[in-house]
Amino acid sequence: MATTITDVTVRDIRFPTSATLDGSDAVNVDPDYSATYVVLETNRAGLRGYGLTFTNGRGNEISVAAVRALKHHVLGQTLGSIAEDFGGFWLRITSDSQVRWLGPEKGVVHLAAGALVNAVWDLYARSEGKPVWKLLVDMSPEQLVSCIPFRHISDALMPEEAIEILQRNEATKSVREQEMLRDGYPAYTTSAGWLGYSDEKVRRLVRRGLADGWKHFKMKVGRDRDDDIRRAAIIRDEIGPDCKLMMDANQIWDVDQAIEWMEPLAKFDPWWIEEPTSPDDVLGHAKIAEALAPIGVATGEACQNRVIFKQLFQAKAISFCQIDSCRLAGVNEVLAVMLMAAKFGVPVCPHAGGVGLCEYVQHLSLFDYIAVSASLEDRIIEYVDHLHEHFVYPVKIENGRYMPPTDAGYSIEMKAASLDYYEFPGGEAWKNRQDFSVAQAFTPGAKESGGRKPIYGR
Amino acid sequence: MATTITDVTVRDIRFPTSATLDGSDAVNVDPDYSATYVVLETNRAGLRGYGLTFTNGRGNEISVAAVRALKHHVLGQTLGSIAEDFGGFWLRITSDSQVRWLGPEKGVVHLAAGALVNAVWDLYARSEGKPVWKLLVDMSPEQLVSCIPFRHISDALMPEEAIEILQRNEATKSVREQEMLRDGYPAYTTSAGWLGYSDEKVRRLVRRGLADGWKHFKMKVGRDRDDDIRRAAIIRDEIGPDCKLMMDANQIWDVDQAIEWMEPLAKFDPWWIEEPTSPDDVLGHAKIAEALAPIGVATGEACQNRVIFKQLFQAKAISFCQIDSCRLAGVNEVLAVMLMAAKFGVPVCPHAGGVGLCEYVQHLSLFDYIAVSASLEDRIIEYVDHLHEHFVYPVKIENGRYMPPTDAGYSIEMKAASLDYYEFPGGEAWKNRQDFSVAQAFTPGAKESGGRKPIYGR
Repeated sequence: MATTITDVTVRDIRFPTSATLDGSDAVNVDPDYSATYVVLETNRAGLRGYGLTFTNGRGNEISVAAVRALKHHVLGQTLGSIAEDFGGFWLRITSDSQVRWLGPEKGVVHLAAGALVNAVWDLYARSEGKPVWKLLVDMSPEQLVSCIPFRHISDALMPEEAIEILQRNEATKSVREQEMLRDGYPAYTTSAGWLGYSDEKVRRLVRRGLADGWKHFKMKVGRDRDDDIRRAAIIRDEIGPDCKLMMDANQIWDVDQAIEWMEPLAKFDPWWIEEPTSPDDVLGHAKIAEALAPIGVATGEACQNRVIFKQLFQAKAISFCQIDSCRLAGVNEVLAVMLMAAKFGVPVCPHAGGVGLCEYVQHLSLFDYIAVSASLEDRIIEYVDHLHEHFVYPVKIENGRYMPPTDAGYSIEMKAASLDYYEFPGGEAWKNRQDFSVAQAFTPGAKESGGRKPIYGR
Repeated sequence: MATTITDVTVRDIRFPTSATLDGSDAVNVDPDYSATYVVLETNRAGLRGYGLTFTNGRGNEISVAAVRALKHHVLGQTLGSIAEDFGGFWLRITSDSQVRWLGPEKGVVHLAAGALVNAVWDLYARSEGKPVWKLLVDMSPEQLVSCIPFRHISDALMPEEAIEILQRNEATKSVREQEMLRDGYPAYTTSAGWLGYSDEKVRRLVRRGLADGWKHFKMKVGRDRDDDIRRAAIIRDEIGPDCKLMMDANQIWDVDQAIEWMEPLAKFDPWWIEEPTSPDDVLGHAKIAEALAPIGVATGEACQNRVIFKQLFQAKAISFCQIDSCRLAGVNEVLAVMLMAAKFGVPVCPHAGGVGLCEYVQHLSLFDYIAVSASLEDRIIEYVDHLHEHFVYPVKIENGRYMPPTDAGYSIEMKAASLDYYEFPGGEAWKNRQDFSVAQAFTPGAKESGGRKPIYGR
């Protein structure tokens, strides 16, 4: 009996994280980390596919609507028919003849396509009894390349080149797979460097991070230059000269401003400056990269699709490629970017955090190391210690490393109790909280009125 | 008494245009031209602001949801407080701290911001008793520049430069205003060149166009090369060597493919090739432009924001700048692009068609000529003769030219009967049409089942 997708459900799940300023930066001042959560039901008992796209709170209902507008591309399909022509399936769902006007291939409709596409990968991996990273590792170069959308990137990467890249390290995959299962994939933490934290809290969190085995620390910059200088001094003082310090401006600067702002920060030896300006500005990033070298430029979490990454590579605009598992429309497009990165010699360091992003991206980096790059040099996955307790198969960090998930699927299934509690607006977490977030949108200043406490466990 | 915005309503309006293949091209094969239609109510009797964003059918409900998620930036505001700091207002509505993750500044949330921003401009112009173009023409350079978002484009255009550009032709504005009121602004037509039409229909429509005074003709290309060559020959044969022939590929090609495909079409002397590849591909357009010169490259209707246009100018990637009144988030961002175009010497030729786009863009080009460019050379507005009958103040075309609207506002108010009839899904136009569009999304092949007739008058 063919596995058929018999129903597609989508839920609006929001965590009231703005109450604690976790995740606050120069641009995202009050995020309520949220998920547009998709479940694919099938005709096989107990077999489901789970996917989500991450959003920042208000507007999550828009991507829920976008999932509904695209779900007809999934509903009624057999898993076999999708897996046989995964590249074709990806093109259909991202170029719906009427919906594509709303992108094309960007913004809400692309995020929604990502949630659906990733749910199909989860389903596919579960039906094979493998985690997604292992499913990918076991695919042949030809199979992998058949999943990749080459439309609008063939001037940078042709299918034959992609196959050649995948063949390069094919013979030694099992060695690296064993290494990963034993040692895990290196991570870095942003937990200490949020703008909302006091100097004392930063110092305390950095010390705890060092004790926990972290070697890379990221701080947010861009709201106040003196503040940035002071906090950079504290962190560098604590971590010493051998650990890496990264800085993240979250798109706050104009191009020339980025270059000027970073001048007095250079003495703290930042490894990279992340999102120095608009994620749409390929030429701007190239100008900044040239001016700030040897500080590397990193971006990607808000880069809308493979066409932007293609140009960032072509223009030598980035030294670190920060793919996002949801911003790109799922695994297929990530594969496209990963293979372009390999061709252009740029290390892939996934963006994570939010809700579910750590769970997702570990699969991508494991595949990258085992089957594509065969190198850990300058490669590292972001890690933020938030909200993992809501997942059925949460990430496992040991000594500053992601330990490979071994359960089947894409690690993104959430606990039923969490889904019910945080569903918006009906869940317990929201029913009695009309004082903020939603209300706040209509009541300027309401955010300052106090009375908010973190209600999720940390 | 200050004019205060007391309510914001939004409606999902769709025209079943896919039934006739009007508007079909290589990518948009079955558009149901639609509008996310916004009305701002005020505390002043009879004073309202009207705005819309254009979409292609399915998914219009997503941009309706996005308007709802952003409307708190407008609701309760006074017109005076917005007009006093229009640039600040624009930044607030396009960088809502939670909603911006869904873009940022692109896709659905940017389209929705555009509908709201344009509704405010309509309201502003009505309260001044002027059409929008005249409101803009009468503003001082300093006032205009205070409306413009310079964020992320200051490396290409500084406020002082924008003021200098606006001052250049300020003294002679009234001469050009009189000229426009007398002669109108030149237009071109796409009505003859849709892919769905037979050769005979193309020939007949071109002849009718010539008889009506048109001198520029645009054809769609990219689905079948032999077909393109045959239709180009027909059109060039009919229009002779002196009229302009434009070609439009609607993003169908990869970069190198665009260059190859255009080779045998060059002999028909195309004035421009429009949307040869992904609208996100600045470097790709630059490569195509270099290879195909002297054929000009044109793009813009799907270019998400001013940052993409900035780069297209910086990279010398386009010879024609096709702003879209809805894709950019309203008049403020259009002003930014228009002034960059002036600085880089690229003529602005707005995209129009769909529903309401002609009504909108005439205001923009009139302002461009009177206050910015002071030139009509290589400048022309798209015109498509569809759906104007639904507007209270429809465009007036005489002898191939847009005649300046003289009614107050942005010309985008629709007739109450049309709104009711075409509201989705409850309006008469849709109630009994479950055979297509919506249904079609869930029933592959339903589109071929026949029985559909155009139900709007043409």
